[in-house]
Amino acid sequence: MGDDAAIVQAARVSYGAGTRKVREDRALIRYLLRHRHTTPFEMCELKLHIKAPIFVARQWLRHRTASVNEYSARYSRLDREFYVPDADHLQSVHEEQIGRQRASSSGMDDLFGSTEAVEDDTGAPKDPDRAGLARELARAALPVNYYTQFYWKIDLHNLLHFLSLRADAHAQYEIRAYADVILDKIVMSWVPATYQPSATMRWTPLRSPQAGSPWSSACWPARRSIRRVAGSPSASGAS
Amino acid sequence: MGDDAAIVQAARVSYGAGTRKVREDRALIRYLLRHRHTTPFEMCELKLHIKAPIFVARQWLRHRTASVNEYSARYSRLDREFYVPDADHLQSVHEEQIGRQRASSSGMDDLFGSTEAVEDDTGAPKDPDRAGLARELARAALPVNYYTQFYWKIDLHNLLHFLSLRADAHAQYEIRAYADVILDKIVMSWVPATYQPSATMRWTPLRSPQAGSPWSSACWPARRSIRRVAGSPSASGAS
Amino acid sequence: MGDDAAIVQAARVSYGAGTRKVREDRALIRYLLRHRHTTPFEMCELKLHIKAPIFVARQWLRHRTASVNEYSARYSRLDREFYVPDADHLQSVHEEQIGRQRASSSGMDDLFGSTEAVEDDTGAPKDPDRAGLARELARAALPVNYYTQFYWKIDLHNLLHFLSLRADAHAQYEIRAYADVILDKIVMSWVPATYQPSATMRWTPLRSPQAGSPWSSACWPARRSIRRVAGSPSASGAS
Amino acid sequence: MGDDAAIVQAARVSYGAGTRKVREDRALIRYLLRHRHTTPFEMCELKLHIKAPIFVARQWLRHRTASVNEYSARYSRLDREFYVPDADHLQSVHEEQIGRQRASSSGMDDLFGSTEAVEDDTGAPKDPDRAGLARELARAALPVNYYTQFYWKIDLHNLLHFLSLRADAHAQYEIRAYADVILDKIVMSWVPATYQPSATMRWTPLRSPQAGSPWSSACWPARRSIRRVAGSPSASGAS
Repeated sequence: MGDDAAIVQAARVSYGAGTRKVREDRALIRYLLRHRHTTPFEMCELKLHIKAPIFVARQWLRHRTASVNEYSARYSRLDREFYVPDADHLQSVHEEQIGRQRASSSGMDDLFGSTEAVEDDTGAPKDPDRAGLARELARAALPVNYYTQFYWKIDLHNLLHFLSLRADAHAQYEIRAYADVILDKIVMSWVPATYQPSATMRWTPLRSPQAGSPWSSACWPARRSIRRVAGSPSASGAS
Repeated sequence: MGDDAAIVQAARVSYGAGTRKVREDRALIRYLLRHRHTTPFEMCELKLHIKAPIFVARQWLRHRTASVNEYSARYSRLDREFYVPDADHLQSVHEEQIGRQRASSSGMDDLFGSTEAVEDDTGAPKDPDRAGLARELARAALPVNYYTQFYWKIDLHNLLHFLSLRADAHAQYEIRAYADVILDKIVMSWVPATYQPSATMRWTPLRSPQAGSPWSSACWPARRSIRRVAGSPSASGAS
Repeated sequence: MGDDAAIVQAARVSYGAGTRKVREDRALIRYLLRHRHTTPFEMCELKLHIKAPIFVARQWLRHRTASVNEYSARYSRLDREFYVPDADHLQSVHEEQIGRQRASSSGMDDLFGSTEAVEDDTGAPKDPDRAGLARELARAALPVNYYTQFYWKIDLHNLLHFLSLRADAHAQYEIRAYADVILDKIVMSWVPATYQPSATMRWTPLRSPQAGSPWSSACWPARRSIRRVAGSPSASGAS
Repeated sequence: MGDDAAIVQAARVSYGAGTRKVREDRALIRYLLRHRHTTPFEMCELKLHIKAPIFVARQWLRHRTASVNEYSARYSRLDREFYVPDADHLQSVHEEQIGRQRASSSGMDDLFGSTEAVEDDTGAPKDPDRAGLARELARAALPVNYYTQFYWKIDLHNLLHFLSLRADAHAQYEIRAYADVILDKIVMSWVPATYQPSATMRWTPLRSPQAGSPWSSACWPARRSIRRVAGSPSASGAS
């Protein structure tokens, strides 16, 4: 719902006919962002279908000015998929936070060995609904790397705020991977005039050290886990 | 953005595949409303262009969960239109609140005589920007029956809440006239499955004494003062 | 912050001096609740320190109009405590949702056996920060019955809404246990005039079938997991 | 409710015991502000009683994340006071926006002459409730320089945002006068550790050109129109 033109339309009702000729749309959007005239950006809405590990969803849903419908594990089965960081990424985080020696693979195994409790010997997932237990309790033992799904609707102003925090280099890698896709794939094609000044004004400085990193080319499933939903100009998905 | 189908889609992601066959859409919406499962209704957004007296806008904008861009009298001229209640309506309110005797017309004249300060002898409006005064101060003397304009974007859940308070018989007549149009013209054609249970469950009981009143057929300018804006399924306006 | 008197004070500024003598405070509060004049109830704030399993926190934090600071497992160790439903409660839920036969204890063991991955043979918790793994990844494998902690600040209007949904008999037992304590211990002593009509008007009807149930006397740790924080009239805790 | 210590307490639950010794409170607050960790600032609440012209209240209440109870002109009489800019301020605004020639005093008289409609010949206010008219319509002709009153409760994070926009040199003088008092009198004494970095980090740059201006020493009634309400550490008022 809405695009760059809707921002401009809303800005002009606030500033009147006088500004109509003076500024090009692109310059007006730049001006609005620089002067923190944020309300016109609320006139655009984006609705996404997200699939993410519970611990990512927990960070995500801390952003309160959005509408959410999450797939409920109380009533239904989830897809029984787990996020397991790949070895290179684990090593990266390890070096950054702990030191340059090798992460012990046994530590890793122990850690994500907890998923063994929910997979059987053949690698097939055990049924979290097993043994006749009520689902509302069965879900109480799921690990937070289990994937959940939700619809997420947010206006562009609050989306830009979300992205400025979550596409920042200080954000945890796993949520940043989603934020990068939303920013560079979806926002860029949806509201190109807003994308550019946003990118240059607020978070790119923070992101630039990241630019050449292996992560930007990482084949992260986020790209396949975000889907635009009808009502947005193009419903064809992110990539 | 969104419609009855979007509500149902969002509800089902929260309740899972199990409910897919069990309920018809219409019954599901009824169920959601009755059990106060409100989040699926946030998945629909409506954007309106409103023209209303300042005192109506003041009540309107007390509803905080909406996005607003108001025409700014600081930068631009408004249209110099005033709301003047018609004599019959004045008499109605008078009888209801004060008693059955005739409202003094001199009271009325005094009251809205203040608009004379902004109209010249020919009936033409005086320029609120007159005598070289800065607009930001010129507007400080406008009466609150002066018309302002704003874009208003709100999700369906919060719209229903707004309507339950403002289309209620206890709401002031002037804002109720707008709420009635939004409810009976726009909501009805936009989300018909939601319209019906909403109407029967929450506010109609309160509204029914009003049903046969002269007000429901009143030719109130609200009907011409609400315009749906692009991004909603039909942009053709209210009436 | 604030109490019954603050509600009354705020209501009177909205209705003016005229109502000052007419109504007793208690009657005014009853009137406000019945007519959904909710804004005066926003003038009171409560701040709690909550300790709850992650899956309870996830439901809790879906209520967006509150302020939250959660203990971060990225930077610090949590207390390594898990919620394990007691056998009677498991059996209750089981019977209600699945049928009258005995829940298999092996199902239960399997389910919460996943906690074994984080406890060693002596019953002592294994370190989730073990083997030199970065905490931000170590926490990715915690099960959602792990306890987290957060500060939660909310105004009384939104608290009543939260309680009407979460102290309701349809809410999941685990979060309802907290809601019951907040309602019957904290709200009752904090704003007694509000407590009574709230309890009789909205949710007690829904709760009454529960009244004689074994749950109401259950020794649920919620009682020890909610702590009022300075700034509220009495900071002495819930029970 | 709350103060600098509450911010620090909330920040530490998010960052854990590890940071307890590392940072002084003041440095931690500076760090939180610089890195936009805004949630701890939501743990403090301020409640004010404001008396302001309607056109100021209209700008004020556009900030949505606050709780408001406004004195209702529908039910009660307001105090019948009007804001009339003093001649020097009018001349200032005039020069800045229109040019250096003298503002015509006849323009001014015309403009605020509309208040004559509500004052009688002796200078005494006419009764807006006069001639038996219902108040809900009588108020429809009040000019927007009429004073209204409201309770306003807001958390510190949103207050800082409000102040960054309204104490800025680009804000209209009339609302800035209030914002200056809130910032320099109330925030300074309430949360001194937050006041200083806020002042130096965000808005002082914008405010500094204003520093030597006649406005900062102006005897603006705002100082007498803002009153702190019980529940805040010191209830003694602004000045």
